[in-house]
Amino acid sequence: MCRWLAYSGNAVPMSRLIYETDHSLIDQSLSAHSSVQTTNGDGFGVGWYDHSDVPGLYRNLRTAWTDANLIDLCEHIESHMFLAHVRAATATPIQQTNCHPFRYRNWLFMHNGVVRELEILRRDIAMAIDPSLYNSVLGSTDSELMFYLALTFGLVDDPYGGVAKMVGYIEDLAAAKGVSHPLQMTLGIADGKNLYAVRYSSERDSRTLFLSASVAAIRELLPEEHRDTVDAYGANAISVVSEPLYNLEGAWNPVPESTFICIRQGEVSTRDFVPISP
Amino acid sequence: MCRWLAYSGNAVPMSRLIYETDHSLIDQSLSAHSSVQTTNGDGFGVGWYDHSDVPGLYRNLRTAWTDANLIDLCEHIESHMFLAHVRAATATPIQQTNCHPFRYRNWLFMHNGVVRELEILRRDIAMAIDPSLYNSVLGSTDSELMFYLALTFGLVDDPYGGVAKMVGYIEDLAAAKGVSHPLQMTLGIADGKNLYAVRYSSERDSRTLFLSASVAAIRELLPEEHRDTVDAYGANAISVVSEPLYNLEGAWNPVPESTFICIRQGEVSTRDFVPISP
Amino acid sequence: MCRWLAYSGNAVPMSRLIYETDHSLIDQSLSAHSSVQTTNGDGFGVGWYDHSDVPGLYRNLRTAWTDANLIDLCEHIESHMFLAHVRAATATPIQQTNCHPFRYRNWLFMHNGVVRELEILRRDIAMAIDPSLYNSVLGSTDSELMFYLALTFGLVDDPYGGVAKMVGYIEDLAAAKGVSHPLQMTLGIADGKNLYAVRYSSERDSRTLFLSASVAAIRELLPEEHRDTVDAYGANAISVVSEPLYNLEGAWNPVPESTFICIRQGEVSTRDFVPISP
Amino acid sequence: MCRWLAYSGNAVPMSRLIYETDHSLIDQSLSAHSSVQTTNGDGFGVGWYDHSDVPGLYRNLRTAWTDANLIDLCEHIESHMFLAHVRAATATPIQQTNCHPFRYRNWLFMHNGVVRELEILRRDIAMAIDPSLYNSVLGSTDSELMFYLALTFGLVDDPYGGVAKMVGYIEDLAAAKGVSHPLQMTLGIADGKNLYAVRYSSERDSRTLFLSASVAAIRELLPEEHRDTVDAYGANAISVVSEPLYNLEGAWNPVPESTFICIRQGEVSTRDFVPISP
Repeated sequence: MCRWLAYSGNAVPMSRLIYETDHSLIDQSLSAHSSVQTTNGDGFGVGWYDHSDVPGLYRNLRTAWTDANLIDLCEHIESHMFLAHVRAATATPIQQTNCHPFRYRNWLFMHNGVVRELEILRRDIAMAIDPSLYNSVLGSTDSELMFYLALTFGLVDDPYGGVAKMVGYIEDLAAAKGVSHPLQMTLGIADGKNLYAVRYSSERDSRTLFLSASVAAIRELLPEEHRDTVDAYGANAISVVSEPLYNLEGAWNPVPESTFICIRQGEVSTRDFVPISP
Repeated sequence: MCRWLAYSGNAVPMSRLIYETDHSLIDQSLSAHSSVQTTNGDGFGVGWYDHSDVPGLYRNLRTAWTDANLIDLCEHIESHMFLAHVRAATATPIQQTNCHPFRYRNWLFMHNGVVRELEILRRDIAMAIDPSLYNSVLGSTDSELMFYLALTFGLVDDPYGGVAKMVGYIEDLAAAKGVSHPLQMTLGIADGKNLYAVRYSSERDSRTLFLSASVAAIRELLPEEHRDTVDAYGANAISVVSEPLYNLEGAWNPVPESTFICIRQGEVSTRDFVPISP
Repeated sequence: MCRWLAYSGNAVPMSRLIYETDHSLIDQSLSAHSSVQTTNGDGFGVGWYDHSDVPGLYRNLRTAWTDANLIDLCEHIESHMFLAHVRAATATPIQQTNCHPFRYRNWLFMHNGVVRELEILRRDIAMAIDPSLYNSVLGSTDSELMFYLALTFGLVDDPYGGVAKMVGYIEDLAAAKGVSHPLQMTLGIADGKNLYAVRYSSERDSRTLFLSASVAAIRELLPEEHRDTVDAYGANAISVVSEPLYNLEGAWNPVPESTFICIRQGEVSTRDFVPISP
Repeated sequence: MCRWLAYSGNAVPMSRLIYETDHSLIDQSLSAHSSVQTTNGDGFGVGWYDHSDVPGLYRNLRTAWTDANLIDLCEHIESHMFLAHVRAATATPIQQTNCHPFRYRNWLFMHNGVVRELEILRRDIAMAIDPSLYNSVLGSTDSELMFYLALTFGLVDDPYGGVAKMVGYIEDLAAAKGVSHPLQMTLGIADGKNLYAVRYSSERDSRTLFLSASVAAIRELLPEEHRDTVDAYGANAISVVSEPLYNLEGAWNPVPESTFICIRQGEVSTRDFVPISP
């Protein structure tokens, strides 16, 4: 119901990926190809890392394609790791606190998908969040609850385990409450050094997610006169996206169903994602 | 580039036409059928008449489909004549003063279309506006300039003449400046007693505009069990719309190219629209 | 931390009380006299009753004094019972779902004050809300939690009991958690027929609250040439306000500390307010 | 009617001056000391220079003190020259295009003050703007008209002359139209290398403006344990402000009436400001 992108590589102006590609995230906000909804106009957010301990965050409930501030910020802020998200709301209000990514200390979290029949599950999920984290939940989305539940289950020390137990908890709760196929999700998560991406759904029919080829590989795919255009990203650059940012055969590899990815300085490690009952 | 509707009839909650039809204006804001742009998410406005001298006006730069206030206002405000508009901006900023309808005393004005190459024509148009009206121009759209130019040319006393001279002025100016096909427009205009609609474009290929059949005629077209649903609108009710609000063979008649319509208490008078050089 | 007004009487344009008095609510939003904060610029809301079952609601996070829509709505909407509120946020985000009044079916609720050390109490309060009401909490304020807690404790059938048990619950919880003087509140509550107001604080030093004299009494206080100005409100009209809307000796009576007021068709019944441990 | 600050020096996070002083610009937005209005809550803007040719711009119509995005941007964006402005609107709408600073290519312009009886003067001023610049005027403030008039009169090549002729034009026009004391202004202008400030009013009773002492001088004024806090700004750092950002005897020098200041790499050159009839 949303579209997102995550980037790790050399510091570049964020506009390079958010605006300046054929099917950029801004273009996707107006006309997504493979999303359930065509229009993703219910808020925008970008979180970025620089030399600070805590990432910067800019979230707005305006349509991304009309936000004059966003253009300037993306052109002027350079970052080596950033997450950006355009929202198509499901059932929760359009407000800044419901825009992705969500931030907790040095962590950022964003989600495309849904917790189905949330009205049946919400209260239990909220009560399962560690009381010390409860006050940090500022909005009313399923996504933010998923984030704080993953933190409750140890995301900071064990990202795979934190996410797998969060999913396991929701699957178990849904089974107990008679909700089938409760989870549909692609997740983008970062701590400033590592970038994580997860593709999963209860029904094993998850929303699209793509991993870019290496800059070296993309360089070879490009016509000779355009090869220089990718050099600024650096040898280690990787993007994870809901939809390819441009058409180039071989540049975007679909992430398989039920997969957990960790990206660190250009190294991509992939493992099967299996929920864990907490 | 926009979609609009205008209503004249018995006082009804505005939500009846704005929300509660199959292809309501709110639905059109997310997925217009015959518009140049699918999404009309760059602002919304509604102006309505009641017992006051001056119509009420509610304009917002949020997407119409996410505006919780708008739902309540449309359900709670009843009006016998109202104009509503969803905007897809061309080149001017998304701001309240650029949302339609525009208001001058008891007059409301809204526009779907464009003044082409406005950057070449804008200054002359602004200068042609009567100095006593100049300060009333609050935004930066072509549409608002058209309204004040029509007022300059006598809209209040002679609606046909005011609009025809406005169009004539812009056609003449465009010809002098080398701009071809300067105008594309459907206009909805009201003074509280009369509702006017105009379909015109320089190239004689105007955006769609439809006039509803009479309530009596629509009643006959409906299955017997649904006939009561239209009684609340009253025998004199008429709507003018950019796109039909629902599918019903015979209920929506296309307004012919180059037409000026005046609706007064259910009486529809139609004449050919021909620009007048002022 | 906020200012509010509530009105019950003949149907009048809401602008009469919200805009058109010397120290109107809009004036108070810019420069409150007796509020903890001078500026109440963190959102506005008005809820009004008409012939519908459910009251209308308009809430906005803009400063009230710059909201052009608000002026029009208040001038054009007439209501026999309405509640209006300007917010000065304490620690929760400025968003529409945090603006007062809050609505549940035919009920409206607004609050000036604070639940102190909310971060210690919030989770328990949320858990105490009836699960069937839990999903109706849309924002993150202390005030909305108070409303749903009062509903949980029977507000609909027994307004005094619902509020007294809500207060009792929070006082008991605070005592158990070591939070002293947890509650500071003036409440405005309505169901469309009855208007309720409560003045209470744990420390018995509550924010100001005033009840208007009867229209007949105010008529006598006015200079002879101005007496007609109040006739439109009707013999049964009553206002409850955080601050007097204008200066007129005898027109505004302070509501005593720890008081519960019920107003029904001009009849004012007053009783001492004592929390009840639920 | 507004408050502003301008900074030139070493690159520092903008939050240092905008947030982290006793009487920061954010504090002034809620409670200005020497402003005509206490509350400057009708929009905020900041423009900053970095390595790009064109400065970045962030403008918002929310109250500055509640804008969560603004905090993050100011903490994460470092700049060697920036201008920031909180607005208290006079008579023009609250919209992004009316927020300062205004930008033209590499130039930024902001204004505290007013063109009096603008409704009498606006059309002539607009028509005096060079037709090639006319379409760049996006909002409806007196301030933006002043900027484009100064550009028309050569601001880019001769900043003193451009401003002096702009003022001269308005003074002459006002005299011809019978408007007395038309201008009240303090201006902050920058091109990325030079920072300009002007204090002037027709009645020779201009709004306050202060120039910071040198960092070396301020260092000496500080208690020994606090001297390191100013080192990050660099030896050449200078601020120009509507109100002192903190209390420190000797740190803020009032700019004399009718003065034009140019700051370049810490060098301050000052001359009397005298309008020039264009």
